Amino acid sequence: MSGNQDLLQRSLRSVWHPCTQMKHHEQFPLVPIARGEGAWLYDTEGKAYLDAVSSWWVNLFGHNQPDIKNAIKAQLDQLEHVMLAGFTHLPVVALSEKLAALTGLGHAFYGSDGASATEIALKMSFHYWRNLGQANKTKFISLQNSYHGETLGALSVTDVAVFKDTYAPLILQSSQMPSPDSRLAEAGESEEAFAIRCAAALETYVAAHHETLAALIIEPMVQGAAGMAMYHPIYLQRAREICHRYQVHVIADEIAVGFGRTGTMFACEQAAGQVSEIADFICLSKGITGGYLPLSVVLTTDAVYQAFYHDHTVKGFLHSHSYTGNPLACSAALATLQLFENSDVLGANQQVAQQLMAAVQGYDLPMQHLRQRGMILAFDVITTKPHFARACYAAALKQGLLLRPIGNTVYWMPPYCLDAQAIEHLVHATRAAVAESL
Amino acid sequence: MSGNQDLLQRSLRSVWHPCTQMKHHEQFPLVPIARGEGAWLYDTEGKAYLDAVSSWWVNLFGHNQPDIKNAIKAQLDQLEHVMLAGFTHLPVVALSEKLAALTGLGHAFYGSDGASATEIALKMSFHYWRNLGQANKTKFISLQNSYHGETLGALSVTDVAVFKDTYAPLILQSSQMPSPDSRLAEAGESEEAFAIRCAAALETYVAAHHETLAALIIEPMVQGAAGMAMYHPIYLQRAREICHRYQVHVIADEIAVGFGRTGTMFACEQAAGQVSEIADFICLSKGITGGYLPLSVVLTTDAVYQAFYHDHTVKGFLHSHSYTGNPLACSAALATLQLFENSDVLGANQQVAQQLMAAVQGYDLPMQHLRQRGMILAFDVITTKPHFARACYAAALKQGLLLRPIGNTVYWMPPYCLDAQAIEHLVHATRAAVAESL
Repeated sequence: MSGNQDLLQRSLRSVWHPCTQMKHHEQFPLVPIARGEGAWLYDTEGKAYLDAVSSWWVNLFGHNQPDIKNAIKAQLDQLEHVMLAGFTHLPVVALSEKLAALTGLGHAFYGSDGASATEIALKMSFHYWRNLGQANKTKFISLQNSYHGETLGALSVTDVAVFKDTYAPLILQSSQMPSPDSRLAEAGESEEAFAIRCAAALETYVAAHHETLAALIIEPMVQGAAGMAMYHPIYLQRAREICHRYQVHVIADEIAVGFGRTGTMFACEQAAGQVSEIADFICLSKGITGGYLPLSVVLTTDAVYQAFYHDHTVKGFLHSHSYTGNPLACSAALATLQLFENSDVLGANQQVAQQLMAAVQGYDLPMQHLRQRGMILAFDVITTKPHFARACYAAALKQGLLLRPIGNTVYWMPPYCLDAQAIEHLVHATRAAVAESL
Repeated sequence: MSGNQDLLQRSLRSVWHPCTQMKHHEQFPLVPIARGEGAWLYDTEGKAYLDAVSSWWVNLFGHNQPDIKNAIKAQLDQLEHVMLAGFTHLPVVALSEKLAALTGLGHAFYGSDGASATEIALKMSFHYWRNLGQANKTKFISLQNSYHGETLGALSVTDVAVFKDTYAPLILQSSQMPSPDSRLAEAGESEEAFAIRCAAALETYVAAHHETLAALIIEPMVQGAAGMAMYHPIYLQRAREICHRYQVHVIADEIAVGFGRTGTMFACEQAAGQVSEIADFICLSKGITGGYLPLSVVLTTDAVYQAFYHDHTVKGFLHSHSYTGNPLACSAALATLQLFENSDVLGANQQVAQQLMAAVQGYDLPMQHLRQRGMILAFDVITTKPHFARACYAAALKQGLLLRPIGNTVYWMPPYCLDAQAIEHLVHATRAAVAESL
């Protein structure tokens, strides 16, 4: 039995893989990875796969990135962990200060899973209104087809049927607003006009229900799990105005879209000068450590922080996770932010993004809704083939490419370190995989 | 401004500390930690603090532990991360196999926060019954004063008022069974007799409600946040029998008590030969990485796994977290398990535990309910002083000791590497801190 075969059989016996119907692995391959380098992953037999989805949207600067790696090693020689209740340390302080400067939102509250950040933001918003004597503001709204995680609180504002419907009896009711996803615009309607129309629908709902609404939670600019649904930034501006007018918080879930992914450091910046002009809370995770370690954080306003600052213990936000502010994860995040400071990452990405778009525009494939925001490019394949996504995923793997279509949407969300060779492989292997799967 | 003062002021401005009413830090000190070594933490001015709570119950073999540190460094040179949907890697496979061998439960499903493990177990249990056509089994039960985390799903089975009451409108209703906490026994009633009486109450409830019950979730042997409430293992045996008879899952939440903490590798082993004889699911986190990195996991039975194994995608468990099975965290966990294999850790702990108990038995303090399970020792201080816990915490810090009483319960849950000097300091500084705070 080869090295690959042995490890994957052991994995199928011992590991319950996430977001997976395990029986599908009787037909679809499981790939055992031994190492990574830049945008590439290598299996146990040395076969290379281009990581076109940044390992679930977490990797920014490539695998085996020397600066991040060395930062973690250095931190390992100082302090691996200390509890953050009553104690603190330089990595968590320095990181919190940098994130506050970048977003205009401060008071960093940490978890490890992205879903925990959603839970923290929802609980904080609810508790804020309660501390202010508005205990009737208990409801949340989100967009149709939104994804904010799968713990039960996060799932209550997620709107992806395959993740949510099964658990309906366990989850809090929330209401979903029309998504400004540009694909849903009417014929001849501009992206901007459609976004404005969706914002009007939001306004109608908020005007009628604001007395019971705590917050709107939203994925700025791109709804990832919806199939890289992209929308005009005016929606964010309007949503902010409406929510502000009716005293409803805006929670920006930038877990997937933060850290340069959509072309600006944070996606909200495409609608305003700084995140804080759009959102009362921002949730960050995934790319925050460059794809190295789990870390999530919620940042919020002074006004929110002050509402919890009180002599009474229970007016405080008593939420906790054991590894809150883990120094190793914080050091990875600091090294990641340093990489943005060292060079014009966003400018370089823009060059790459243009090359990617030009290449796909030359595809001779049945496709529609070709769209792009920064380092996310997506198009929808026109096919009636059942299980296109799985077929295309398998075909791409054969080509040495990690591609993970969502329904009929093929997307790229690669690390920011694609060289000419990687781009060429990405373009050609994707075309071949799609063509084979139609 | 000294190094300490500067960093702590910056922390108060930028970091929202967990489980903390931030205003209390106007009076109580926040301590900036620069490095750790063994059982000791050192602040930025070199003052040493004995970490008597293992940094929120996560550290096992001390800070700056060379084997765990080197394992993470070695993994950093191989593969820092790859997504676990469709992919796998040796650290996650090896860890899953070892955990399965240790518990008798397999099919490891990973998250990062401990609360995520609770959420995964609750969702899996619910979904299992649904896949078997028993969609009416949607309810959970837990013990009074239990703690299982603070995301909304986890909070629904947690029963600590300061964490839960505020969020009542957001959380699923669950029912709490009488806690077998030995402190609650009647005068003259043995620990065992009281546990049997509590199990009888559980049986009455389960007999009446089993048709709607999915699972009982329980902290085996010690309810940590309840104030280190300890109970007789017969409760676990009886609970298992009752739940098995009425087709209700048992979820063992060993996040705090696993990995040798209570004297056996897993706390359930004090009631049976192996975890799988007590529980259908076990939740692990905290000590799993030796206190280095966030990692959580749920292990379960073949029967549960098979109920999700189906051609239909939505019968699968589609839950996910981005950093599921992170190779760096898994390598820390493997190194931690290796330390258990290298020497008789539990035997050595037993020697230390006996010394600790003997020392506390000599205390001339107003105390009751002196109790111990492995490397957890606790007693309740008899005092009417308001805010005893905070006063004692502050007094201990002055002594160079990290002690974090829960209400009037003073407890030790130290790393497993206490030497004679550390034990002496622990014993004397604790006595002095308590005496000063009465």
